[in-house]
Amino acid sequence: MDIEQTICQMARDAKKAAAVISRCTTTQKNQVLTAMADLLEAKAESIFTENRKDLERAKVAGLSAAMIDRLTVSEQTIASMAGGLREVAAYTDPVGTMDQTQVRPNGLRVARMRIPLGVIGIIYESRPNVTIDAAGLCLKSGNAVILRGGSEAMHSNQALAAIIGQALESAGLPPQAAQVVPTEDRSAINALLAQEEFVDLIIPRGGEGLIRFVVEHSKIPVLKHYKGVCHVFVDESADFAMAEAIALNAKAQRPGVCNAMETLLVHQSVAAEFLPAMARRFAEARVELRGCSRTLAILPDIPAATDADWPAEYLDLILAVKVVDDMDAAMSHIAEYGSSHTEAIVTSDYRRAQRFVREVDASVVLVNASTRFNDGGQLGLGAEMGISTSKLHAFGPMGLEELTTRKFVVLGDGQVRS
Amino acid sequence: MDIEQTICQMARDAKKAAAVISRCTTTQKNQVLTAMADLLEAKAESIFTENRKDLERAKVAGLSAAMIDRLTVSEQTIASMAGGLREVAAYTDPVGTMDQTQVRPNGLRVARMRIPLGVIGIIYESRPNVTIDAAGLCLKSGNAVILRGGSEAMHSNQALAAIIGQALESAGLPPQAAQVVPTEDRSAINALLAQEEFVDLIIPRGGEGLIRFVVEHSKIPVLKHYKGVCHVFVDESADFAMAEAIALNAKAQRPGVCNAMETLLVHQSVAAEFLPAMARRFAEARVELRGCSRTLAILPDIPAATDADWPAEYLDLILAVKVVDDMDAAMSHIAEYGSSHTEAIVTSDYRRAQRFVREVDASVVLVNASTRFNDGGQLGLGAEMGISTSKLHAFGPMGLEELTTRKFVVLGDGQVRS
Repeated sequence: MDIEQTICQMARDAKKAAAVISRCTTTQKNQVLTAMADLLEAKAESIFTENRKDLERAKVAGLSAAMIDRLTVSEQTIASMAGGLREVAAYTDPVGTMDQTQVRPNGLRVARMRIPLGVIGIIYESRPNVTIDAAGLCLKSGNAVILRGGSEAMHSNQALAAIIGQALESAGLPPQAAQVVPTEDRSAINALLAQEEFVDLIIPRGGEGLIRFVVEHSKIPVLKHYKGVCHVFVDESADFAMAEAIALNAKAQRPGVCNAMETLLVHQSVAAEFLPAMARRFAEARVELRGCSRTLAILPDIPAATDADWPAEYLDLILAVKVVDDMDAAMSHIAEYGSSHTEAIVTSDYRRAQRFVREVDASVVLVNASTRFNDGGQLGLGAEMGISTSKLHAFGPMGLEELTTRKFVVLGDGQVRS
Repeated sequence: MDIEQTICQMARDAKKAAAVISRCTTTQKNQVLTAMADLLEAKAESIFTENRKDLERAKVAGLSAAMIDRLTVSEQTIASMAGGLREVAAYTDPVGTMDQTQVRPNGLRVARMRIPLGVIGIIYESRPNVTIDAAGLCLKSGNAVILRGGSEAMHSNQALAAIIGQALESAGLPPQAAQVVPTEDRSAINALLAQEEFVDLIIPRGGEGLIRFVVEHSKIPVLKHYKGVCHVFVDESADFAMAEAIALNAKAQRPGVCNAMETLLVHQSVAAEFLPAMARRFAEARVELRGCSRTLAILPDIPAATDADWPAEYLDLILAVKVVDDMDAAMSHIAEYGSSHTEAIVTSDYRRAQRFVREVDASVVLVNASTRFNDGGQLGLGAEMGISTSKLHAFGPMGLEELTTRKFVVLGDGQVRS
């Protein structure tokens, strides 16, 4: 079979398996997740062996230290994957729950029932743990999944795929409910993106290049997880101590993630008072600042920001700082440069807090809290598939519920339309 | 400006207008809808004049009587459009409502707030009333809309566009919140499908060809409204009088619509008793039957169904009839030939009703009621944008709420992540 035929067969098998997994009881699905966790721990050595093959090849290919780090499966990676699966097993199963129940005037009883989406395709890059994390969430929500990881993690992902298949079989379920694409050939991605008859959703996880490629070529709906160019706006009525703590946390607590702050906006009337102390705290945390001209007038020692800084997602200990005339100017800046991801205001003013919440276009809008809270666990959803920055279907962190949809259930006793 | 530039400018303007309309009060939006309704009635004559230009051209082009009927704007069309707008004005506005409120252990107050999707592109065929109906629903739900109707309705749609623009301006809102593409050139569709920076959703309404074209070329998420190959399964425990009434209504009450039944499935143990009486009722309603071999053994006078009948969406007084071994066979048939649209069972058996509801994959699943109830009005959603047969975002009838999404609102008092 050529690659297209292989992928088409996988998609066909996945659709059949999806019908089975969609009808499973929660107990059966939890049994699969628990078996996966147990097998990961029991077979850690064989996973390390396969992972070493990937790592050796990566070294020969001259991959960066950061890439090799992401590719490495350690004892800790195993523990974290297994722990994650057991946590997801403990989550409430959304499938089959009903809401918006109503009785129509003609006596029809109408409700909306949560159902799995069907078959989900995940296209990702180097981290092998995504194979396990994504499979766990998809299976718990009753979906079948086709996983296409980075070619550099091929051996590791195949070893993990074997474990998932074994766990499914041990619970009496078809192993085709979670399949890993068994080829490094990039044309497998194109083939997968063309299976609109069998695959219901594609989630690309990775850099902007991957996401653009997927959106460009997919005939299947795509949920995008783009970058986070997140802002904190310090209003003139802000409590300075609170603003300092939030800005520092948003930038420096974990700078390499999408919900870290990339630009600090400061109201002009408090900039001269607020920025010097704030700058000292950033300096202690080794955050490098880049300022607009009004910032430079207050902090003359930092470099000037250029046009490239305002849309930048540094993912690093670098921060652009801009003094703005007022909240309208802050919101205009966010509308122009933000990525609909996470936006925060620090203020004591009721009206401004309300307006910011209503008018700012982002998946998570916060008042007096760090941008770092845009996270499924922090917002009460549990583990997440990522953070959607497109509005359709899911906007913000995607938990189990966001991997389902709803159908209408109508119970009658002979009603017809007149 | 060439077409691409025109469309790009429209999309850019729409995005700006979307920010304004998204913040409107419900009162302002209702004012627009009411003004649209009033203007439609006041300017009916000028709409008829423009519509006549389209009709004359259609006659010269030799369009079918059915096409010309769909294209015609009559007094009744005006009344129905105006009435529809006043009805939508009376609906509850979903924008700004909050749900899933929770307080996190750290005191953060988290909720999900309904917000408009942004800019919606609607691509449709000949009916000019879609211009008004779709604009009304999009504006009420706080979205900007770009409408691209059939080239054969160009004059009518431009006249309606002028009315919508005037209504928006009369309420102090930018007319760019609802724009009609001012060219017949088909390349305008391609240009619109490429505006992923400004347009959030595309809804194609029309035949399978149009929908396939849009899905194939769009870089923007598409909500599909495909065909309805709907079934009624008469179980062995069905009340025959009820089953007859439901099957007759599902097929014959309005055969040309997507929620009409196209295939009747009958349990083998009751086929010999049920089918002759049912066939007489269908004959009275001038429904032409096509049967499987077991049906022909009971109704020898009807023609045999061929392979082409089971997946057919007749949209006409034609019905395929199949005798099945049991409910499993019925559900397998539905899984193979159904279009995820509407499926009904007639049964008195509790367990079978439950299984059918849980296991059948369709946007609306009914027990003991006609398939014709898959309709926004009938299911309590009010007027609808169409019936989505894809699972992402909305599955089934799309009302106002389905034209919105939700963002997270997080209210804190200084929380940071540790």
